[in-house]
Amino acid sequence: MKGMILVMDGLAGRPLKELNGQTTLQAAKTPNMDKMAERGITGIMDSIAPGIIPGSDTAHLSLLGYNPYEVYTGRGPFEAAGVGVDVIPGDIAFRCNFSTSDEDGIITDRRAGRVREGTDKLVEVLNTMKIEGYEDIEIIFKESTGHRAVLVLRGPGLSGKVSDADPKVEGNKPKTVKALDDSPEAAKTADLLNKVVAKTYEMIKDHPVNLERIANNEPPANIVIPRGAGEVPDVPSINDKYEVNSACIAETGLIMGIGRFAGMDIIEMEGVTGGVDTNLENIRDTIVDQVNNSEHDFFLVNIDGADEAGHDGSMQEKLEFIEKVDEVVFSEILKLEDIYIFLTADHATPISVLNHSGDPVPIIIKGPEVRVDDVCEYSEVAVAKGGMGRIRGSDVMNILMDLMGYAHKFGA
Amino acid sequence: MKGMILVMDGLAGRPLKELNGQTTLQAAKTPNMDKMAERGITGIMDSIAPGIIPGSDTAHLSLLGYNPYEVYTGRGPFEAAGVGVDVIPGDIAFRCNFSTSDEDGIITDRRAGRVREGTDKLVEVLNTMKIEGYEDIEIIFKESTGHRAVLVLRGPGLSGKVSDADPKVEGNKPKTVKALDDSPEAAKTADLLNKVVAKTYEMIKDHPVNLERIANNEPPANIVIPRGAGEVPDVPSINDKYEVNSACIAETGLIMGIGRFAGMDIIEMEGVTGGVDTNLENIRDTIVDQVNNSEHDFFLVNIDGADEAGHDGSMQEKLEFIEKVDEVVFSEILKLEDIYIFLTADHATPISVLNHSGDPVPIIIKGPEVRVDDVCEYSEVAVAKGGMGRIRGSDVMNILMDLMGYAHKFGA
Repeated sequence: MKGMILVMDGLAGRPLKELNGQTTLQAAKTPNMDKMAERGITGIMDSIAPGIIPGSDTAHLSLLGYNPYEVYTGRGPFEAAGVGVDVIPGDIAFRCNFSTSDEDGIITDRRAGRVREGTDKLVEVLNTMKIEGYEDIEIIFKESTGHRAVLVLRGPGLSGKVSDADPKVEGNKPKTVKALDDSPEAAKTADLLNKVVAKTYEMIKDHPVNLERIANNEPPANIVIPRGAGEVPDVPSINDKYEVNSACIAETGLIMGIGRFAGMDIIEMEGVTGGVDTNLENIRDTIVDQVNNSEHDFFLVNIDGADEAGHDGSMQEKLEFIEKVDEVVFSEILKLEDIYIFLTADHATPISVLNHSGDPVPIIIKGPEVRVDDVCEYSEVAVAKGGMGRIRGSDVMNILMDLMGYAHKFGA
Repeated sequence: MKGMILVMDGLAGRPLKELNGQTTLQAAKTPNMDKMAERGITGIMDSIAPGIIPGSDTAHLSLLGYNPYEVYTGRGPFEAAGVGVDVIPGDIAFRCNFSTSDEDGIITDRRAGRVREGTDKLVEVLNTMKIEGYEDIEIIFKESTGHRAVLVLRGPGLSGKVSDADPKVEGNKPKTVKALDDSPEAAKTADLLNKVVAKTYEMIKDHPVNLERIANNEPPANIVIPRGAGEVPDVPSINDKYEVNSACIAETGLIMGIGRFAGMDIIEMEGVTGGVDTNLENIRDTIVDQVNNSEHDFFLVNIDGADEAGHDGSMQEKLEFIEKVDEVVFSEILKLEDIYIFLTADHATPISVLNHSGDPVPIIIKGPEVRVDDVCEYSEVAVAKGGMGRIRGSDVMNILMDLMGYAHKFGA
């Protein structure tokens, strides 16, 4: 028996006056999701705990059975995993910006004119960096989209308890990184990081990419400024913990990073954007192909567009995207057999909030042996009467593993 | 957006044969509370955890986001805060009785004939107390209602881990206070407290208040007997923790003490008794005025009468009080706008139990963006089908702060 957590990112919402007190999910025509509710057991879920506003990262960690309060040490490690760095426990990871520094060390543009191209070339040079006295530390840069990048420090005696170099406001020098506790590890990491920041400027200020930018009157991407330090935690992969063979089918680096962190195989897809314009046919075909034809028996799927529309406050776009996913993806999801599918959102992204909220999310489990309830509609309000009651994100893997027959009895 | 936790103390109950299997809340005519249910989202709540019988103090601590198992070190600190002592972290506080001692040190009346007047005069004298060898310890007495008082010890090297001096049964001497652990702090506190008890007798046995009581053939209030030691915990105020500007509107010292402990402004009211004869008009007017005209954006309101009637086993009084609160207070509560109101009891006080019980309590949240369910009646049974399901007291602040827009996202 296979299993799947199917996350419609940011799907849930709050009642809207413009929709006569309905949420976008309530108002959207979703005959296939409704059929799934009819054939399954429903309920509501707090991804972390009632009222707690989850990030997509912390929510997915919780859904995969990790305690985010223990493993989420900062954004750095998950960003690094998300852009494809094979982080290992003990690594100290940072989110970074390529920025523009003048000759006096003042940051004149935190995003280097929102540089779009050439950062991969800069990273090639940066990855040859050695810092005197820290020869045992591996210094790994990796470019991300636009001006974004990550930095990973790997080696003995480091700590994630260090402050940001990012000055936040332009017109200032990078902040001197400081230790946030009294440990020698934090002191060492802070000292190293200050030297790394200074060294990035030396190494790339005269790089051809930047000389060309200057010639084109664009701010050069001549320094890298780290923030969001975190230590990569030492956790078991879900394959080891639950004895599954798992795969992650996601659109965004953030969720792929969570999948990589959890030791899942990452399934690449063409044409996916993480927005409402994504290629839903490819997502559907990937899901169907993986479920029917791969060795994998457990899947994390994330479809991101509803979250984007919620952040943008675009009610109509959110509603239409939900209807399109229902038509394109769920028509085929309904036909999958021999699989338990846990349909959920990771959090609400209400149109009125323009961000995530702490409201519970609607859930369905469909599969051969669930106790089907009488809820026939997939919406925040309808499923609150469902047979599962109110559960937490941390319950999901246990429930699925039990249904799939992968769990072990506790006791005799 | 403002917020309020509105507690009907001891409101909930159990089915009564005399009411054909209804609870007093079910049987009471409460059209305004019912309208609130109709317009809001409902559910049931365990103030602490299922089956745990809360005190009003521990329930309110939980509702305000404090873990009572961590912060509730004993009744002393909360009684002291409740009678108006500005307790500070590290203070050791005790509940006390003014009692009657004979010349041989035997307690002949634990409540000093339920003395009603003059204890403030006795406290004036007691507050000049100095104990040799403990010159660095401030000794603070404060009278409460009747024979009750509190004692606060303030200074370095003290502990709340000491036993009671109260002999519980008349005809005995005060118990020798003992250290309850091996720390030097507990030993010091026990020794000091024994000297304080002896000294109270010396200082007030011949006080004019007592000479007059003796002349009137009343037992003199000539000794103070402490019990219920607890150390005032070091916790953040809810203003700091949740970034609110909060006020407590309550009738009783116990709840005002919780409010003071939580760093809330205490709003005084005329004519409130904590009983069924309280001045509900004043409570209503205070709530409305505070919500509409004050700088406060978060409120804890406690109306106490239903609890008193429950303790007394007075079914008819409890029922009539609930109806009167509905008519006088909730008619106006319904009209408040731009506020999230969380209506609840702190615990059940069933007529048949004559005390608190561990049953869950009925809850409503009314406010602009809640997911309204189809429950149209505020009763223990009706709301169990509500859209919130079953939550805990410790969830309440997180849920309210999320709805009010005061919460922060955990993750990205």
